[in-house]
Amino acid sequence: MQNTASNTPSKRPRIVIIGAGFGGLEAAKALRKADVDITVIDRTNHHLFQPLLYQVATAGLSPPSIAAPTRFLFRSQPNVTTLLGEVVDINASARCVVLENGEVVAYDHLIVASGATHSYFGNDQWAEHAPGLKTLEDAFNIRRRVLLAFEHAERESDEATRERWLTFAVIGAGPTGVEMAGTMAEIAKHTLAGEFRRIDSRRARVLLIEAGDRVLPAFPPSLSQRAEEQLVSLGVDVRTSHKVIHIDADGIRVDVKGVEQTIVCKTIVWAAGVAASPLGKLLARACSLDEASVDRTGRLKVEPDLTVLGHPEISVVGDLALAQSFEKSGEIKPVPCVSPSAKQMGRCAAKNILARMAGGKTDVFRYMDYGLLATIGRKSAVVDVVVPLFGHVRFSGLFAWLFWLFVHVYFLIGFRNRMIVLMDWAWAYGTFNRTARVVVGTEKFASKSERKL
Amino acid sequence: MQNTASNTPSKRPRIVIIGAGFGGLEAAKALRKADVDITVIDRTNHHLFQPLLYQVATAGLSPPSIAAPTRFLFRSQPNVTTLLGEVVDINASARCVVLENGEVVAYDHLIVASGATHSYFGNDQWAEHAPGLKTLEDAFNIRRRVLLAFEHAERESDEATRERWLTFAVIGAGPTGVEMAGTMAEIAKHTLAGEFRRIDSRRARVLLIEAGDRVLPAFPPSLSQRAEEQLVSLGVDVRTSHKVIHIDADGIRVDVKGVEQTIVCKTIVWAAGVAASPLGKLLARACSLDEASVDRTGRLKVEPDLTVLGHPEISVVGDLALAQSFEKSGEIKPVPCVSPSAKQMGRCAAKNILARMAGGKTDVFRYMDYGLLATIGRKSAVVDVVVPLFGHVRFSGLFAWLFWLFVHVYFLIGFRNRMIVLMDWAWAYGTFNRTARVVVGTEKFASKSERKL
Repeated sequence: MQNTASNTPSKRPRIVIIGAGFGGLEAAKALRKADVDITVIDRTNHHLFQPLLYQVATAGLSPPSIAAPTRFLFRSQPNVTTLLGEVVDINASARCVVLENGEVVAYDHLIVASGATHSYFGNDQWAEHAPGLKTLEDAFNIRRRVLLAFEHAERESDEATRERWLTFAVIGAGPTGVEMAGTMAEIAKHTLAGEFRRIDSRRARVLLIEAGDRVLPAFPPSLSQRAEEQLVSLGVDVRTSHKVIHIDADGIRVDVKGVEQTIVCKTIVWAAGVAASPLGKLLARACSLDEASVDRTGRLKVEPDLTVLGHPEISVVGDLALAQSFEKSGEIKPVPCVSPSAKQMGRCAAKNILARMAGGKTDVFRYMDYGLLATIGRKSAVVDVVVPLFGHVRFSGLFAWLFWLFVHVYFLIGFRNRMIVLMDWAWAYGTFNRTARVVVGTEKFASKSERKL
Repeated sequence: MQNTASNTPSKRPRIVIIGAGFGGLEAAKALRKADVDITVIDRTNHHLFQPLLYQVATAGLSPPSIAAPTRFLFRSQPNVTTLLGEVVDINASARCVVLENGEVVAYDHLIVASGATHSYFGNDQWAEHAPGLKTLEDAFNIRRRVLLAFEHAERESDEATRERWLTFAVIGAGPTGVEMAGTMAEIAKHTLAGEFRRIDSRRARVLLIEAGDRVLPAFPPSLSQRAEEQLVSLGVDVRTSHKVIHIDADGIRVDVKGVEQTIVCKTIVWAAGVAASPLGKLLARACSLDEASVDRTGRLKVEPDLTVLGHPEISVVGDLALAQSFEKSGEIKPVPCVSPSAKQMGRCAAKNILARMAGGKTDVFRYMDYGLLATIGRKSAVVDVVVPLFGHVRFSGLFAWLFWLFVHVYFLIGFRNRMIVLMDWAWAYGTFNRTARVVVGTEKFASKSERKL
């Protein structure tokens, strides 16, 4: 073991932040004026604007539009050191984290913001056939599968197999699933229309499979209804109350109110389950918490001020935190796993660290709910926005889509990204074309095909 | 074996084009008004603007800026069918090509435009340590290595190893090598400056290693001289008369006028050798040509009208063709392997097919030489342009760079690409920033690092 942290001796408080997602980034930014040494550790070299990741998966945007190198974002914040690395252990009594190469990074305050990934509810063998969407690599994988399915269909002489290549299924009708299904239908009906000579891409089927009884279950039922109507009008085959019980290379087996059915398809996207980062369990062990401190999805229960029980120097924020919101009314509400809550937790944890350093008291976390929004496709979205002093405002259709567009472009990091994304969308809107349809690694397409010789 | 070509019965002449590079694309476009059935077969789903590939490798541009889906380019040309596939055999007597899955595509006329790849002169084990640059996948591989080298250096506590991570070598000082070395120096000195806390990226060394006695050997010596001066002023360590004799994980062994030297470095880019596609040799065998018909780099000798000896129905164009230019003066000149020559050969082969179909005579190939140009970095380039009725005009520096920019953006396919590339460059020029620095797959960075625990 080596201790490179000691190479840069410092008497300033050392703050380690694990994860450069929305929570970690906001925490570091909130500490920009503090007289501290911050180390941000992430397994990737970039901060990812995850709400638009489905656009990379569906060839609408390129990675630089929705991702920026983490160290670039902190170039003008001298108190931040960015490390590309993976935390493999946390030692809560020695107050240090251990990286994958044995490097030990000591902290006075630790913020764990390592987020979540997709979960197959214990059926990890499904991953091979139904990739999920959490990283840029996932997005490229899905893009490759979707675009190559049409290429396979064009070259297939057997009609049944061709149909299979032209059947796409998205599992899970949360915002990501709805966005994926809507955009995939658009690709088949518009983007690729007229480019193939042996198949008609418009005949492709896109199924959206949901175990619950409606799409967008987190939204009010009226908006779920509107979203489903918009999906159907885009040509998506919406299948609610379809519980997935098996996935393999031939397709999906579902349970529809007690009756088993088989859906034959080649291309499947998993947008159903979420599991917190394994650092949740690791941290619980490191802090000698009991088993009940981690919920079924791996999230770690935190104190009202987002710290870990018995460890006021450790905070957990974002999707990894099973946090509660302490409303002014005295009510205690659960906090949803969305990007605004991660950012707010990041800021709250940073503020509490500063308060502790100053010998003051920490604040409880209060989630400011701005509402929910999801887009469905060209010109369609559903919005449930919370207007202060007024309450929920719900709308859908073109105006909702413009609102969605404005919010997403506004929150994108960096002026250039916003400009490029707007241009890409204006172009896509005017031409129906999607600019990022290049598949890297298709040199291997041939060798991966079944050889029939 | 199946014959899906017979699924679409047609009495029109069938033209098969292997490869959707500059040669194949131009040939298909030149046949857009012909009453023929064209099948374009390529191993990737995109046409690649290779002269700007080094910009993807150096994080300046994203793939959609320099690559477009082949079938999108032919969407409005109904006589073209695009197939994503790999030709594994050519049967010249049965007049058909065989794809990797056994599919047989029959032709009346065949254009082979499968291009070239990099060659390690029989030392294929060097590829692992010194990747070449021919495909988008290659470009991503190089981008990942270059950017991660700085990340490794930032985390390295041993000074000698850190130095090694901060030493970059480009082998081969043709246009690609010069462009790569110049841009890598720019990245170290400007783009990344100030983003690291433990290292100073400006201290990175970029070596350009060339066996010959000057950079850009295809250019006139005066421009080689100017290019070398510009490289040196960018901070590139130019090493001419350095012949590479060995490459491994520790670095490069070179022979400098009989004396062996070792260059210790971690990141190496191979821009030295080129080998023609294996379809050259395959075609020579299929047409029963003797061994001398294929040169040392695998290029196939063609007749004056670009057809294969004894097979007037087969043409070879682009980097795969060992062609000659029949000048008006009666002189016979070799044809260089550059994109203008590939495009001109593609058009010539298409015209000759139409002439044969009409029962007329074919034309000999005449290469129209517009000159050569190469860029070195920000504001630097060398240009040797041929002005009709006037001769060679040679210049370098800012004006040459603007000329280079204009030519490359002009020839980029598709209006949107040009606009995005110009914007990206304007942005990069104004800010020194490079927008495409996101590395996909860095999740694996950690597990690939040597574990020291």
